Amino acid sequence: MQLDDLEKGSSPPELPNDGKLRLYSMRFCPYAQRVHLMLDAKKIPYHAIYINLSEKPEWYFEKNPLGKVPALEIPGKEGVTLYESLVLSDYIEEAYSAQQRKLYPTDPFRKAQDRILIERFNGAVISPYYRILFSTDGIPPGAITEFGTGLDIFEKELKARGTPYFGGDKPGMIDYMIWPWCERVDLLKFALGDKYELDKDRFGQLLQWRELMEKDDAVKQSIISTENHTKFLQSRKNGENNYDILANDAKKPRLE
Amino acid sequence: MQLDDLEKGSSPPELPNDGKLRLYSMRFCPYAQRVHLMLDAKKIPYHAIYINLSEKPEWYFEKNPLGKVPALEIPGKEGVTLYESLVLSDYIEEAYSAQQRKLYPTDPFRKAQDRILIERFNGAVISPYYRILFSTDGIPPGAITEFGTGLDIFEKELKARGTPYFGGDKPGMIDYMIWPWCERVDLLKFALGDKYELDKDRFGQLLQWRELMEKDDAVKQSIISTENHTKFLQSRKNGENNYDILANDAKKPRLE
Repeated sequence: MQLDDLEKGSSPPELPNDGKLRLYSMRFCPYAQRVHLMLDAKKIPYHAIYINLSEKPEWYFEKNPLGKVPALEIPGKEGVTLYESLVLSDYIEEAYSAQQRKLYPTDPFRKAQDRILIERFNGAVISPYYRILFSTDGIPPGAITEFGTGLDIFEKELKARGTPYFGGDKPGMIDYMIWPWCERVDLLKFALGDKYELDKDRFGQLLQWRELMEKDDAVKQSIISTENHTKFLQSRKNGENNYDILANDAKKPRLE
Repeated sequence: MQLDDLEKGSSPPELPNDGKLRLYSMRFCPYAQRVHLMLDAKKIPYHAIYINLSEKPEWYFEKNPLGKVPALEIPGKEGVTLYESLVLSDYIEEAYSAQQRKLYPTDPFRKAQDRILIERFNGAVISPYYRILFSTDGIPPGAITEFGTGLDIFEKELKARGTPYFGGDKPGMIDYMIWPWCERVDLLKFALGDKYELDKDRFGQLLQWRELMEKDDAVKQSIISTENHTKFLQSRKNGENNYDILANDAKKPRLE
């Protein structure tokens, strides 16, 4: 069941008492997408409840005092909501480790190395990405170079691991945690012009990885086409924040 | 063995091959202190190597590409260094879970709640704390209120838990992760005047907790007096960054 874009003045959703998890999300939010990917990768059934982040429902602050998505409610633990995308992803990994394949390495040292890379993606890639995309006053000097240098770390790492995915033969935690922004790389055309694309020689491994990831079952559940990402970005730049772009397509595949 | 304040032009330290962990640190860094607390709480022997962060040794970037402390080297895993204070703390918790008492709850849901609180401390307390302390242009409006509101969350949480520590009858992960800034609260006198102190009624639980924490064996290993914290802060404000204030006291208790 997908509940669409609840906003100010709305009532909290009435959901069946069916033991499913409840994920509070926003269709275009890459942080929320991390949790969709985790739940879909582990085939855990859940209700997705989409929140209008410009006009937040009053009741939502009881779910997450910070008013942000993602947030997760667990059956039997009503009244306490978990939030923060990485904490949620780690929670899902730990709470469902017995039934499902593990996404982190079992060895604590290798797990810590993966977590460091996920943290580094934040500063080295996500940060310059947004500085390029949301610059109002021209692209900040150095941001494009910084973005490339950030991706170099991951290109080099994937090459060193010698496997198709960061997680090995199948996507693991790093793959899913960095995916939402990799899905959105072509959005940079919006700021940098239509000719912008990742250098095929410099980012050969990553581009191959991206093609593989697009075919992953979990990724296919939440992937959005660059065209639709661009529509949303445009609405955001106009100050409209049109969260409904995909609402009517909810049952249709999202990637045309 | 404690190696003091290695700086630009220095050689990497030569340490005995004794199977001990190597923690790269800086005496006054609260993030590095988190890892000292973890290692001391779990009674894991280690070498502390102190880095001059204003004049970083060239070789240090091979240890941590970000050039920051803390960083940790594990015997048998030479050449790969772990970093990021929370990743390191979680690593120590997981890698030494068999021999030592656990600092996180075993239940993944309760563990996630603790991790959320640690994340919230970052935005709700640490962030306004630094804005007050390092304001050059008068205290930013709202920062003092925000700092108090941030601490309210932890006061309320400790009351709700009804235990002396966040971790229960003994300090747990939250206690150690938030401690370094709680140790430094009185430093705010530096910015707010000598009369500044936490309201005894509003923060009764936290103040009681602070007294207990000061007596904890792990805390006693790394605690620094407000007087010495202030000396360092003054040197930082003067642009001197005197990392050596405690170097000669290394073997002496740090809290006068």
